[in-house]
Amino acid sequence: MQQELEVGLIANIATGEVQTASADIPIATTCTTDVIDVTDRVGDIVADAGIVEGFALVSAPHTTCAVIVNEAEPGFLEDFKRALEAIAPQSHEYAHNDAPHAEEFEAPNGYAHVRAAFLSSHSTLLPVRNGKLALGRWQRIFFVGRAR
Amino acid sequence: MQQELEVGLIANIATGEVQTASADIPIATTCTTDVIDVTDRVGDIVADAGIVEGFALVSAPHTTCAVIVNEAEPGFLEDFKRALEAIAPQSHEYAHNDAPHAEEFEAPNGYAHVRAAFLSSHSTLLPVRNGKLALGRWQRIFFVGRAR
Amino acid sequence: MQQELEVGLIANIATGEVQTASADIPIATTCTTDVIDVTDRVGDIVADAGIVEGFALVSAPHTTCAVIVNEAEPGFLEDFKRALEAIAPQSHEYAHNDAPHAEEFEAPNGYAHVRAAFLSSHSTLLPVRNGKLALGRWQRIFFVGRAR
Repeated sequence: MQQELEVGLIANIATGEVQTASADIPIATTCTTDVIDVTDRVGDIVADAGIVEGFALVSAPHTTCAVIVNEAEPGFLEDFKRALEAIAPQSHEYAHNDAPHAEEFEAPNGYAHVRAAFLSSHSTLLPVRNGKLALGRWQRIFFVGRAR
Repeated sequence: MQQELEVGLIANIATGEVQTASADIPIATTCTTDVIDVTDRVGDIVADAGIVEGFALVSAPHTTCAVIVNEAEPGFLEDFKRALEAIAPQSHEYAHNDAPHAEEFEAPNGYAHVRAAFLSSHSTLLPVRNGKLALGRWQRIFFVGRAR
Repeated sequence: MQQELEVGLIANIATGEVQTASADIPIATTCTTDVIDVTDRVGDIVADAGIVEGFALVSAPHTTCAVIVNEAEPGFLEDFKRALEAIAPQSHEYAHNDAPHAEEFEAPNGYAHVRAAFLSSHSTLLPVRNGKLALGRWQRIFFVGRAR
């Protein structure tokens, strides 16, 4: 399934002026709960923008997805997926699963809406300093999504 | 109960300059858990501001509320309210319910503080492109609050 | 344990120009789950910056921490810590606890990663109006962290 992330920048550029800019990152999701590291792609957009200091907004224009910041450690990713499953199990009944859908086949995704609402993080804002994403040593940016 | 949302903008306006602006949206909550679609009112503020590209911050100056982005589908709203009730049931005991309150009658709202803390979304930041909120096809902005 | 918060500002300054600025706040965590009120220190940075109107981003460059906004009421803080413990108990098994760590002793902190991922709030963005953080009457900014 093709999804996307939007990256918006607001920053001092080299001339000393504050400017805005934006770019998109295509994301291919392949499984029920995908947690995809997008840090390098966001970092490339920041680097290309010629920023001195400012902010980068990474946002997902989807209602079953989230953008989180955490460590790229396989054990954590496993713990996180298990905890999401405990909060809103995929096999439960959801009223949203019975909603009429306008135009195309959609697998029941009530669980994914509830998870996205709990994470409550359709976007995340990161500082940019000295032309680079100012991430902590272990911080990575993840797109949390799902294949249809 | 009267509550409010603040909308802050930072954006390139038509002259090419970056500027900030802000406006308030009054909200009337009527039941224990209100989830109110405020997308059109935020969109009107963005449209009136003459923005070209930038960001809109939608924030709630309350400690028992949240601002989330999800789908305006009644089944989802039902699922979401049920999930909030499972995370922090209204009928449970909360230490906050016994706190002294300075000046006015307040119904026990410990559950609402815990829910707001978990959603951890007193504000949400949205991209603005081409003079409009850059929302995904199904994305709507909701104020999650409660009547006193 | 020494941790830190970053405060980034983007705002109209007195000359009418939009500018960015940033500063750091050192944080000393002392117990397993620390919830530390940093409002005054963020407010001082905003006041020192000579801002008229804009935004302040308070962000934690750590993967086991969060920044939340809620009420500085001891009962709520107790309720919140209890709810975090229910969501991701410290004594549970976490795959992350068995991960190899590069260079230094680290206590098992899988629970803290999962909590941080759920809160999904490594940063929070606040409006600034009339030179001050535009917080609601009961809103305070908390760093949620842990000692190693």
